[in-house]
Amino acid sequence: MECPIARSIDQAGDGWTLLIVRNALLGARRFQDFERALAIPPNTLARRLETLLEHGIVARRLYEERPPREEYVLTAKGRDLASVLLAFAAWGNRWLAPRGAVIECTDAATGRVVEPVVVDRKTGRELRAGRVALRAGPGASARLRASLSRPALFGRGVPAGGTP
Amino acid sequence: MECPIARSIDQAGDGWTLLIVRNALLGARRFQDFERALAIPPNTLARRLETLLEHGIVARRLYEERPPREEYVLTAKGRDLASVLLAFAAWGNRWLAPRGAVIECTDAATGRVVEPVVVDRKTGRELRAGRVALRAGPGASARLRASLSRPALFGRGVPAGGTP
Repeated sequence: MECPIARSIDQAGDGWTLLIVRNALLGARRFQDFERALAIPPNTLARRLETLLEHGIVARRLYEERPPREEYVLTAKGRDLASVLLAFAAWGNRWLAPRGAVIECTDAATGRVVEPVVVDRKTGRELRAGRVALRAGPGASARLRASLSRPALFGRGVPAGGTP
Repeated sequence: MECPIARSIDQAGDGWTLLIVRNALLGARRFQDFERALAIPPNTLARRLETLLEHGIVARRLYEERPPREEYVLTAKGRDLASVLLAFAAWGNRWLAPRGAVIECTDAATGRVVEPVVVDRKTGRELRAGRVALRAGPGASARLRASLSRPALFGRGVPAGGTP
């Protein structure tokens, strides 16, 4: 599995995992915080946290010596998943909130409402289906390079009805 | 479950689902296309497609009358998930590709490499952990409004080590 989309999804593209990271970004650290807020079965939570530790998305920290108590803190890699969660939030506000945004994102410094949108860093052009193609990059294997020798349009064709 | 992040994750934040949408964006339409490309068990694929149909992320289309054959086409809502997948791709290239990007995103019109980044639509400012807060929006219930009366910082604290 070489595709960075597939590898990212493998590490973080799971419902519980994304909710754990969301709550960690909102300040949760202790096992019990996640358990209560998410109503997640403890075995499931323990397994997900182990996987997140293995992938370096969270790190374990001792916050009390006696008795020893641990908490889970996002790494820089984990915090960087905020971008994915904000893309989910924006999609949800566009498609699942017919009566207006349920949760608004604001600029933490100014308090102004912001609307997350995925753009090209250099040109600022919005990256939408049909505007982007995928091609093999410098880190690709010979096999992937052969199968993606030409850029593959990401989002071809006309959508089947529906407007935001 | 009111939070648009949680609702989005509920509809689309599942590993197989995201891979099905990725492949649909790359042109897959028939059951067999997805089955082969993803090596997904047919029962699992059938269940995921039913859920995607229920949520209006894909639509069913008859592409042959005799014998009747169906294909699955992304709706506008489904195509709009490209933003989430591009955020995953960018995260994967930053954190999971030590030898350089495996897959590059390019501008479909110009062929130039683009780097997906999540910004505020209005100001163009990058939205990263610690820069964004979440607060109740106009569509929020009274209950959510009470629990999110003050904006909650999204990404507090210092990350636990690690650099991209």
